[in-house]
Amino acid sequence: MLNKSLIVRLNIILFVFFLISCENNEITNKADNKSVSDTIKLEKDTLVVAKDTTEHKTDIDRVEIQQNIIETKIVVEQVQTKLITQEEKDEINENPLSSWNDNETKQRIIDFVNTITDKNSKSYVKPENRIASVDIDGTLWAEKPLYFQLYFVFDRIKAMVPDHPKWKRDKLIQAVLKGDVDKIRTYGPQGLAKLMTITQSEMYTDEFENTVLDWIKIAKHPETNRYYTEMIYQPMLELINYFKANEIKVYLVSEGGIDFIRPWSEIVFGIPKEQVIGSRQKLELQFVDNKPVLFKNPKVEYVNSGKNKVISIYQIIGKVPIISIGNSDDDISMLEWTYYRSTPHLVAIVHHTDDDREYYYDKDSKIGKLNEGLILAKENNWLIFDVKNDWKKVFSFE
Amino acid sequence: MLNKSLIVRLNIILFVFFLISCENNEITNKADNKSVSDTIKLEKDTLVVAKDTTEHKTDIDRVEIQQNIIETKIVVEQVQTKLITQEEKDEINENPLSSWNDNETKQRIIDFVNTITDKNSKSYVKPENRIASVDIDGTLWAEKPLYFQLYFVFDRIKAMVPDHPKWKRDKLIQAVLKGDVDKIRTYGPQGLAKLMTITQSEMYTDEFENTVLDWIKIAKHPETNRYYTEMIYQPMLELINYFKANEIKVYLVSEGGIDFIRPWSEIVFGIPKEQVIGSRQKLELQFVDNKPVLFKNPKVEYVNSGKNKVISIYQIIGKVPIISIGNSDDDISMLEWTYYRSTPHLVAIVHHTDDDREYYYDKDSKIGKLNEGLILAKENNWLIFDVKNDWKKVFSFE
Repeated sequence: MLNKSLIVRLNIILFVFFLISCENNEITNKADNKSVSDTIKLEKDTLVVAKDTTEHKTDIDRVEIQQNIIETKIVVEQVQTKLITQEEKDEINENPLSSWNDNETKQRIIDFVNTITDKNSKSYVKPENRIASVDIDGTLWAEKPLYFQLYFVFDRIKAMVPDHPKWKRDKLIQAVLKGDVDKIRTYGPQGLAKLMTITQSEMYTDEFENTVLDWIKIAKHPETNRYYTEMIYQPMLELINYFKANEIKVYLVSEGGIDFIRPWSEIVFGIPKEQVIGSRQKLELQFVDNKPVLFKNPKVEYVNSGKNKVISIYQIIGKVPIISIGNSDDDISMLEWTYYRSTPHLVAIVHHTDDDREYYYDKDSKIGKLNEGLILAKENNWLIFDVKNDWKKVFSFE
Repeated sequence: MLNKSLIVRLNIILFVFFLISCENNEITNKADNKSVSDTIKLEKDTLVVAKDTTEHKTDIDRVEIQQNIIETKIVVEQVQTKLITQEEKDEINENPLSSWNDNETKQRIIDFVNTITDKNSKSYVKPENRIASVDIDGTLWAEKPLYFQLYFVFDRIKAMVPDHPKWKRDKLIQAVLKGDVDKIRTYGPQGLAKLMTITQSEMYTDEFENTVLDWIKIAKHPETNRYYTEMIYQPMLELINYFKANEIKVYLVSEGGIDFIRPWSEIVFGIPKEQVIGSRQKLELQFVDNKPVLFKNPKVEYVNSGKNKVISIYQIIGKVPIISIGNSDDDISMLEWTYYRSTPHLVAIVHHTDDDREYYYDKDSKIGKLNEGLILAKENNWLIFDVKNDWKKVFSFE
């Protein structure tokens, strides 16, 4: 009973954001099936059925994939932060936040960090209590025109179709292949749930992890034609590293699926997997050749949005973050949790105000709606990271 | 439906271990109501109703409580490890595991740690992948004659009765007050669930944390008359510190309630709260005077035993521990997870073989039953920590 209601709940949440988020009524086909490495095919009750599916691709496609792999390796290595050495920390602290304009916002961040790390300050916070909770979509990387995880789902469908010829008769799959969002909409929450189930569950956790890693290496953003790993906000990456340089432990707290985020959290943000909190599916411990494996059950265990972000932070960390950063009304509970429960605290909202370098959206946006959050930020003197005014550059490739 | 079935499941698990664990058919009254500081009374729908209930105690009792607080402070400070400095790490690595006998067991531990930290070794493991999962009851501290959390529950009942006069008419409560385990048994799982609900839920998380902290400062083990914080196995504390000195991140993975463990994990084991994984109740985000608080719902969200330990490790950490240590058949899944999934690995079982200094128990034990685990340990060459032969001392007070 509960499982079903949870699934329905997730479906509704996902479908609502999906319905309202498709601001372009067409899913671009730029991130097409070439962009998905497809070494793992899902077959029930088998551990890994690796097939070379390149026969479905032309020679040119294959060369492109190889090229993409090489390029992405460089990109990922460029942004890779891993564990920071003391030397790197000193360097960051000497010249922090170089992509931020020298204004009040930047100064307030630096003042806060200086205060909590100064043993003579009455606002000093011991390193073990320096926890930051930071949203991902729209806060650390772009979320327009759709959440990246949805492109992953669509790309997976396209990549899996060759091995599932019967799927082509399915009208919903046909809509995905055509990028016909209007058509997908007519299938309601059940339709999206079906797409997510066949692409993200009924497989082993290792298989899924490899699939995500393969995708992130190759897939490109439909509007900028940049790798998703390049769609990180450079100032936010610097902010995370500045926190790390001051022994502040950064947790990524997202509504996205935890198994989708973890494969790249370490290589892209330098955030270890154990510092990622997201939505979870149920897992089952199974045995293949007497060896234990974890199977991704399609049932949803936890939807990490709104109030649930606070609850999961408490259940998993057990401490109140002294820093919370988000970008939409869905983050308000998390921000208030820090604002009311921690002294000192730094609470901040990313406000997307730059249509030239990124996107302009807030209260009327269908994705990342920010209305009440902006009012609360002004009332409570939370920091507002104004993209246009506070950031020298948005992306590293600028 | 699921919630109910989960509650029933927890009740059954708890009741089974409770029924079979009362090897002495009487709960000793040494840990009586004097031993519980009772600054917080549970009243529904109020945040904190602090009352001075010392009027129920004699002057002598009050002096004893004061004395206990002072003594415990010393005890807790003695075992407090917190964040280890580089100096302390060097010291530990120069002379590791001093309470362990110089035999093969100790040597295998040291060899393993040397291998994974040696950059020239082919078994070198990067610091970010050095995860250890360690059970608590019977592995890090004593679990006899009953799990300490059960004494906490009984002590709470005794402490709460003065403010709930009607409870005295309840036959089950009467049985707890008398320490009549046979009588408590006749109430079945529902009885124990009732006791746990009224002592550990329908309150705010802060209240519960303070209650546990107050209890751990004062309550004493019924057989040794030592503080529970002194019932830690000294060699295991050294092992944890040895791991920490080699950048191995230790997670405590227990069936015990996470909100019961976290208040003392940091001060007793030097393990931060975010490195504790346990059973969880559902939490609700509520607002008191417009400020957010978390309310402990009596429904059980997760029972962290057996296979569930593996699942929670994956959901929360996202990595396979390279070290797993337990002491009972309930830990087998967790141990096998490391054994089959990590190379290199160190898998170990604490075998309680010393009736003089602690307890002797294994396959016939009603608490911490160890039968299949011992067979698997021998078959697979897991380490067995034989208390009698491997440990110079069991507790620090010896």
